[in-house]
Amino acid sequence: MRIVVLKFGGTSVGTIKKIKKTAEIIANYKKKKYKVIVVSSAMSGVTNELIKKSSEISENFSSSEYDVLVSSGEQMACSLLAGRLIHKGFKARSWLSWQIPIITLGKHKNSRINEINKKKIIKYLKEGGTPIITGFQGINNESRITTIGRGGSDASAIMIAKFFKAERCIIYTDVEGIYTTDPNKFKKAKKIKIISYEEMLEMASLGAKVMQPVSIQDARLNRIDIEVKSSFIKKSGTLITKRSNIISNKIVTGISSTQNDSKVSLIGVRDKPGVAAAIFKPLSKNLINVDMVVQNISANGKETDLTFTIKAEDLNKTKKIIENNKNIRFRKLLLKKDVSKISIIGVGMITTPGVTFKMFQTLAKNRINIQVISTSEIKISVLIDKKNTKKALIALHKEFELGRTK
Amino acid sequence: MRIVVLKFGGTSVGTIKKIKKTAEIIANYKKKKYKVIVVSSAMSGVTNELIKKSSEISENFSSSEYDVLVSSGEQMACSLLAGRLIHKGFKARSWLSWQIPIITLGKHKNSRINEINKKKIIKYLKEGGTPIITGFQGINNESRITTIGRGGSDASAIMIAKFFKAERCIIYTDVEGIYTTDPNKFKKAKKIKIISYEEMLEMASLGAKVMQPVSIQDARLNRIDIEVKSSFIKKSGTLITKRSNIISNKIVTGISSTQNDSKVSLIGVRDKPGVAAAIFKPLSKNLINVDMVVQNISANGKETDLTFTIKAEDLNKTKKIIENNKNIRFRKLLLKKDVSKISIIGVGMITTPGVTFKMFQTLAKNRINIQVISTSEIKISVLIDKKNTKKALIALHKEFELGRTK
Repeated sequence: MRIVVLKFGGTSVGTIKKIKKTAEIIANYKKKKYKVIVVSSAMSGVTNELIKKSSEISENFSSSEYDVLVSSGEQMACSLLAGRLIHKGFKARSWLSWQIPIITLGKHKNSRINEINKKKIIKYLKEGGTPIITGFQGINNESRITTIGRGGSDASAIMIAKFFKAERCIIYTDVEGIYTTDPNKFKKAKKIKIISYEEMLEMASLGAKVMQPVSIQDARLNRIDIEVKSSFIKKSGTLITKRSNIISNKIVTGISSTQNDSKVSLIGVRDKPGVAAAIFKPLSKNLINVDMVVQNISANGKETDLTFTIKAEDLNKTKKIIENNKNIRFRKLLLKKDVSKISIIGVGMITTPGVTFKMFQTLAKNRINIQVISTSEIKISVLIDKKNTKKALIALHKEFELGRTK
Repeated sequence: MRIVVLKFGGTSVGTIKKIKKTAEIIANYKKKKYKVIVVSSAMSGVTNELIKKSSEISENFSSSEYDVLVSSGEQMACSLLAGRLIHKGFKARSWLSWQIPIITLGKHKNSRINEINKKKIIKYLKEGGTPIITGFQGINNESRITTIGRGGSDASAIMIAKFFKAERCIIYTDVEGIYTTDPNKFKKAKKIKIISYEEMLEMASLGAKVMQPVSIQDARLNRIDIEVKSSFIKKSGTLITKRSNIISNKIVTGISSTQNDSKVSLIGVRDKPGVAAAIFKPLSKNLINVDMVVQNISANGKETDLTFTIKAEDLNKTKKIIENNKNIRFRKLLLKKDVSKISIIGVGMITTPGVTFKMFQTLAKNRINIQVISTSEIKISVLIDKKNTKKALIALHKEFELGRTK
């Protein structure tokens, strides 16, 4: 059985008109003789509206009831989509997670799919039916509705693709694919035709909001090809696949930038073992995520400066924690809000020397000062002044020839 | 276990504020050491909005998907209500019909509850929990969501009261109870403290919109006391119970009126056996409900006049059917839209002679012409000109002393 999983995001089913359009997309796949499994999100806006209601009922709304509440959004969207397909003469029906069932593990609001019972869906596919499965949810071992914490309906689609051994999982969304950089910030950004899971992971975690890292990681682990494409424009999107499928002469695949980072510097910290741990332990305890870390070489062997980045929203909390931390001493605490992290990403870096130099040189030529640097195998990130973000994006985009069509 | 079923209609959970108020009502019952089972409708407006969406998707929207769609309304309301009770420190949770399960028979959109598995709910009640059950729905033998055709959440509440042997089923709604006549039409209408199932059935089917006849009939068959009361005003409502519980010296309990009836008269119909059947058969086939029927005594043994009433919305259809009916002959077809049916209802009629006369005399005194008459054991209905409706209501209300407090 050649199965393809089609996942539609909230904007793809956001209005009655869009649901009709989405039904047409599904119908076209049916004509190609694929067995199609559809996964749908809630109509855009619906989930937020339900969450708002829950917070009006209680500032500490029960997480199990939260799952019952918000899961109704996908139920509505799936029934409308199934209804449209039936209207068009197809055999289709909504499948709610408890009807399959899709079994999750973990806490309410933050579960993960553990098992999908395939029997009923396989039977239904063999009968020529198109199942429209509710994304973002499942039931736990006590038959209570659960929702998937991170990744949402994307994660559902990828797990369904895994369990049903689908040839491909197509994520329909409101963008045309993954871009070399954010097209809202830089108009010359190009759509990437093909990208590896690893690159996509770096892109996703660094600010490309199209897909959640957890979903890409699931796809990578299960070797599922994902295509991200627009449900509004008939164009091929971006294929996310394993590295060996990619033949490219490009060193850098994409550039991402974040704008909600803040920089924290502790000046005159005693340079002795255990100091970094003493600083970061209470931050970690308070769920503050430390990203880039730099420690200067100590000039006199006694004192050093320590700089790290956090999310801007954690800045005040971080300040208080450090000031109240009796296990550390420092001369000065510097906080800087207006910073931006620029990253270049590409598997090509592994085999190409000098990429780091090329990046630094490009920024230097443009008089952009680098404040912090962090690198991985396929990524180089630098922290710069926020005001230089666009200038850096444009310069790096040009330098690494991302505007060039492959 | 002393169980009480509390049912809340759409207006009782129509806003966040009202849900909070409803949670307080439930909390008060918990303090009385009752075991409380709650049944909730969808937030008012939600169901209609969902139905509107379905009709925009298809003018012939799949009835099985319709049930999936609209049932989400109760799911939302129940989770919000449960969330509020949890917020107030009570052990509460939403129970969706598939989680219990509530098994229905019959077609989609028009199912009826056949069986309720009590085990999980009884266990939950024993643990001190308050189950908030979705009204208006169940699942069929194929584990598909179904909705209850007529009676909606009231029917659910009454069946739940039956299966769990509840002491009482309290229907919380936006009115204070059942009135001697429509208080919107006649300000002096009084709230009825106690009414028999039979009287309530006549009241309901004749235009008192508080409860659906099917639900009252279910309650009557299962001898479940129903109290209808307001969830906004702290006052006792109307108790609907068996006749033997009622001690009253009133002959008439209530007066109802309809305004959407039409009168059809066939003048000069051949007076021979089978003519009435020939007229009504095609109407019945077309699902046109004929209500009151009067046939004049034939003057010459050859011709007669036949008059009957139908719903005003069926008038054009009826006209066409009669005109195209080749099995009947008549001289003239008269149609009259502006008629109203006034009914007096009361179990007291059975033992009190002369009620019919008293009614006719009262109308005659007020120069109101009676066009058609129909009677049952506990009801007398007359058809009058619509313009006389209010005058008739006032006169009969006074004549039968309905303004008097018991």
